[in-house]
Amino acid sequence: MRKTCPSFLSSSLAAALGLAGLFSLAGPARADEGMWTFDNAPLQLIQQRYGLTLSPAWLEHVRKSAVRFGASASFVSKDGLLLTNHHVARSCIARLSTAERDLIANGFVAATREQELQCPGADARVLMSWEDVTATVTAAARPGMSDAEAAAARKAAIAKLESDCKSSTGMKCDVVTLYSGALYHLYRYKEWQDVRLVVAPEGHASDFGGDPDNFNFPRFALDFSLLRVYENGKPVQPEHYLKLASQAPREGDPVFVIGHPGNTDRLNTVAQLEAKRDALLPLAIAGAKAQLKTLAAYGAQSPESARRAHALVAGIENTLKANTGQLKSLQDPANFERKRQEEAQFRAGYAKLGRQDQPWAQVEAATRRQVELAREAAYANAGFNTLLGTAMTLVEIARERALPEGERMRGYSANGLAAAERRVRADVPTYKDLELARYTLQLARAQQALGIDHPFVKASVGPQTPGAAAQALIDGTRLDQLAERVRLLEGGAAAIDASTDPAIVLARQLYPLQREQSRRMEREVDEPLKRAAELLGRARFELMGQSVSPDATGTLRFSYGRLAGYESDGYRLPYKTVFGGLFARADAFDNVPPFKVAPKVAAARNQLDMSVPMNFVSTNDIIGGNSGSPIVNKDGELVGLIFDGNLDSLGGRFLYDERLNRATSVDVRAILQALEKVYGAPHVAKELRGQ
Amino acid sequence: MRKTCPSFLSSSLAAALGLAGLFSLAGPARADEGMWTFDNAPLQLIQQRYGLTLSPAWLEHVRKSAVRFGASASFVSKDGLLLTNHHVARSCIARLSTAERDLIANGFVAATREQELQCPGADARVLMSWEDVTATVTAAARPGMSDAEAAAARKAAIAKLESDCKSSTGMKCDVVTLYSGALYHLYRYKEWQDVRLVVAPEGHASDFGGDPDNFNFPRFALDFSLLRVYENGKPVQPEHYLKLASQAPREGDPVFVIGHPGNTDRLNTVAQLEAKRDALLPLAIAGAKAQLKTLAAYGAQSPESARRAHALVAGIENTLKANTGQLKSLQDPANFERKRQEEAQFRAGYAKLGRQDQPWAQVEAATRRQVELAREAAYANAGFNTLLGTAMTLVEIARERALPEGERMRGYSANGLAAAERRVRADVPTYKDLELARYTLQLARAQQALGIDHPFVKASVGPQTPGAAAQALIDGTRLDQLAERVRLLEGGAAAIDASTDPAIVLARQLYPLQREQSRRMEREVDEPLKRAAELLGRARFELMGQSVSPDATGTLRFSYGRLAGYESDGYRLPYKTVFGGLFARADAFDNVPPFKVAPKVAAARNQLDMSVPMNFVSTNDIIGGNSGSPIVNKDGELVGLIFDGNLDSLGGRFLYDERLNRATSVDVRAILQALEKVYGAPHVAKELRGQ
Repeated sequence: MRKTCPSFLSSSLAAALGLAGLFSLAGPARADEGMWTFDNAPLQLIQQRYGLTLSPAWLEHVRKSAVRFGASASFVSKDGLLLTNHHVARSCIARLSTAERDLIANGFVAATREQELQCPGADARVLMSWEDVTATVTAAARPGMSDAEAAAARKAAIAKLESDCKSSTGMKCDVVTLYSGALYHLYRYKEWQDVRLVVAPEGHASDFGGDPDNFNFPRFALDFSLLRVYENGKPVQPEHYLKLASQAPREGDPVFVIGHPGNTDRLNTVAQLEAKRDALLPLAIAGAKAQLKTLAAYGAQSPESARRAHALVAGIENTLKANTGQLKSLQDPANFERKRQEEAQFRAGYAKLGRQDQPWAQVEAATRRQVELAREAAYANAGFNTLLGTAMTLVEIARERALPEGERMRGYSANGLAAAERRVRADVPTYKDLELARYTLQLARAQQALGIDHPFVKASVGPQTPGAAAQALIDGTRLDQLAERVRLLEGGAAAIDASTDPAIVLARQLYPLQREQSRRMEREVDEPLKRAAELLGRARFELMGQSVSPDATGTLRFSYGRLAGYESDGYRLPYKTVFGGLFARADAFDNVPPFKVAPKVAAARNQLDMSVPMNFVSTNDIIGGNSGSPIVNKDGELVGLIFDGNLDSLGGRFLYDERLNRATSVDVRAILQALEKVYGAPHVAKELRGQ
Repeated sequence: MRKTCPSFLSSSLAAALGLAGLFSLAGPARADEGMWTFDNAPLQLIQQRYGLTLSPAWLEHVRKSAVRFGASASFVSKDGLLLTNHHVARSCIARLSTAERDLIANGFVAATREQELQCPGADARVLMSWEDVTATVTAAARPGMSDAEAAAARKAAIAKLESDCKSSTGMKCDVVTLYSGALYHLYRYKEWQDVRLVVAPEGHASDFGGDPDNFNFPRFALDFSLLRVYENGKPVQPEHYLKLASQAPREGDPVFVIGHPGNTDRLNTVAQLEAKRDALLPLAIAGAKAQLKTLAAYGAQSPESARRAHALVAGIENTLKANTGQLKSLQDPANFERKRQEEAQFRAGYAKLGRQDQPWAQVEAATRRQVELAREAAYANAGFNTLLGTAMTLVEIARERALPEGERMRGYSANGLAAAERRVRADVPTYKDLELARYTLQLARAQQALGIDHPFVKASVGPQTPGAAAQALIDGTRLDQLAERVRLLEGGAAAIDASTDPAIVLARQLYPLQREQSRRMEREVDEPLKRAAELLGRARFELMGQSVSPDATGTLRFSYGRLAGYESDGYRLPYKTVFGGLFARADAFDNVPPFKVAPKVAAARNQLDMSVPMNFVSTNDIIGGNSGSPIVNKDGELVGLIFDGNLDSLGGRFLYDERLNRATSVDVRAILQALEKVYGAPHVAKELRGQ
């Protein structure tokens, strides 16, 4: 399956153009940088750096053991046991929880397969094969077409490729964009829609140290959970699954991560990075802080309200810290200087290619517009409120389905429609008091930022106070009931038009506004940026080929690295932590939350082997979306489970620095000790051990 | 004894001058900043900040329990038990060690008082009383005198005050300079010269984490040792000693440090800080690195050579890290900006005082000269080599004794002479192979930096290679023998002149050069800087009085603060560590040195209570010299033992930042657990507990 690597040709071309500089800038890729696609796994680099020869069979084995489940996961037993993070499975665990049965707080162990609990709305998939469809997609845009026409033509070609593939193979098919559009690949997945919870540790064992420890190391998190994939009501027997490592990994050992990194922006221009630093990230950070303040007040009302808000708070805190880390990285003058130099050298290389396009100028103009529109997009956004968001989704499904693919809003292609429908059908608990608090905040912030005359505010608040408007909508809507949602979904446009549910009424009013806002952002920002990124991506591809990895886009990737401690601000950090460190950190904080050891772990203190490794760090280049990725040794055996990166790795969105960027994993031995000595799940440990 | 605080008058004056800004800059003193003298303990600030009223009896009790011993120490039993750091007692422990009995590596416990080992050349003293002698000292410099005459007159007045005091009281008397010469106080000490080693833990228990953990936190160091002060061959019964705290201290609790901070430069001008940042600290850092390289090569020869070099290496690493931390602080633009703003406001205040002097310009000129002379002083310095240093001391004692006090070199006042004689008489082991390695390096560096024609190089190396010259001197000298040193000391100038010992011969040649070099530095740098500092210090004193504390000068000081964790580079640090953390950090590094648990501690693993506190951090404003200081609670009871500051506290030389600066202590409960469960010294623990 692996294609001939074009890097030799490209580097000849670059040499001919006198672009040695560009290649020296690619230097970090000679370090452990890169989130590689499986068609272009960096076998030669791994051979050079670690003296290892990975076979095609090795690659196929780890790829087919890797599972997309929300973020990332892997098969770890012959009976379809699925390993991922607690925080990846958190929405499932939260949805299965009630006030009486708080699985987030207390954890969960299915003593038998019959006790395994189905996750509402969950799916899992494995990448089985792929095909280069670049020629078909690019040919769709014919000479003479305007940019908009070309984009629509490509969108239609992609939709056709996906639906043809689906009908001919019965698989889930996605066309993925690589190197900003220099390559299009058609990915074919095997998909399952029955995933059940097997083991979840206590939430506080998973997130010991809470927000302060998040994105930090040393870390002491049992951030794992085990699920099982079912097919036709029976545990699936996966073609491939990972076995546990037979040898303990040591500092310096090479390790590999297979997972779904979400997004990197390593090809962002300096203008884009400046916009992020000066406008976009600060806006997102302010929004997250406002939400956390509201949720803190809400959660302070009672233990039950705290439980209801917990998953949401954790998610927002996580995003806030990630954004803060990115902002910090962009505020580091040295990092910015590195990006400036890279851009200067790239511009020099680009100039020698003799193109007429001005991609940097295009990016600058579109980025200016992005900053102008970002404020409205942040405040006039129905999506912040789950109930109104559901209403918007229902209205949009009904309206967009009627349009040709090329004219639809983002997220409403055939694949998008199917996903949207599944979200609506998911049996997710909704708490009206929580909705009310969040929606009131959203309306108040919109009114304050946009003024009472903004159409979004007019429609949503009108002559009332934000609180009164929110109360009327939340009290009146019945969208918290699954049956009502399904009725509206299945009734189509007629049911939507006839509905008097206040959320649907408002969503109908907001639909043209939101659609226009979305289209404006698409036309004036996203598409020009995409076109410029294509020019840049193709130029870079022409100069460097696949000798560097493409930016992450949420598709399956492969990264190599090694276990390695590091130094942070003058302090030497080890490559791992041990159980003893968990109790030592808790004791050092007098067991005050979030540094309180979870009750069941604390109760097992005297049974635990304190020198068993808990978490470890490696140089693998990862990013959000990699959560739950398996991390394997040279023999393709599981050594751990990615759950985080350090603070410096957050800047990995823009650049990778091997001295500082670290991926953080749960050691498999920690999982075994937790199953056997804390959670009374020796049967699951046995299954993991393949016994 | 406590004088009326003049801060009210001064602040009225400042207010009259419109200097509110200066007082807002004094803001940090309203935090936990300040190394206060006991005549001006900041009782009101402590009352405001912590709601505590400290009585004169409280202050006298802690002051008289505090002991000067190398750096700092305290009496902790009625029988004169003295508590200080292992690293403060290290030179004593090293001197008592031999190849066969390595007390540094293995530790030491005296099972009975008879087994207690006398430290060669050690002394201990307690500050008993003081007197303001500012009027006498300043009156010595009469109108019409040149600066040099005035300085000599003041020096003579100080020497007379000291010797009169000594002969009338029998005590050790020092005139100390405060506020850069705005105040002179005569300090009277009770002194003992018989100090014996009682308990030393293993060296690796004291410095677990080695250089990487030094100046860092979390920390796991049993950096304590216990000695006993003897008087007339019997344990002294001190007037005051500290009892152990009856309550465990908690985060936020106020704590007080009594000790001997060495030097701060908080009144340094921006020109001085720039010279340190750009020339002086880099020069010192390069010298330390060269020495460490030589010592590493020497120590790599055998375990015995490693043992011989150990104390020296530890000392240089410590200095190197301190200098690096200071440099880092000065390289922080925000810190420099703060100093610039402080200086601008001080200049504005100074201008309103209507003085004719230009202290800032004087500092700038003297600092330029200092940078010019620093290079020669660093390379053409006999002091780097212990044997040649001893020869220089012998020659200087003989020559300088003959001169009137006012004309002597620095360090050869009456007090200085006595201390120099004691150094010569100390029975310190000398290793000629180690001396040779260090002296060769010194000569090679001098030759390379200064050239073969520099008088120091000419005299020291001549036509030979540095290695051959060093070899000849080290082989030929007999100054490694105590009897020979004493013979030359007691023989006076005649013996020195007659000696053919090659080290003495060279020292006689170098004496005029070194004297001239020393005098030039004194005349062209130190004295002008001192005069400018006096102008600045007095102006500041006039504006602010004793509302701020004077720069540290190695004399007894008092600092207040509280136990407090902090955040470093986004990581939340607890206020303390526990024994479990020691093992967790060692396990995390696979017990690879310097993260290997010391053998006796490791052997006791199963007996130890892992949640017993080991080290803690507090906001007290301290600096090098405070090592070994007692840290006490509001009841004046001992809670710990200062042994370090964090990396940020190194910048405390120039500025204090309460968010970041932390003092690091050994918890007394760690000392008790080590004595009782690791080192088999329950009898000493019992004495500490007052049982």
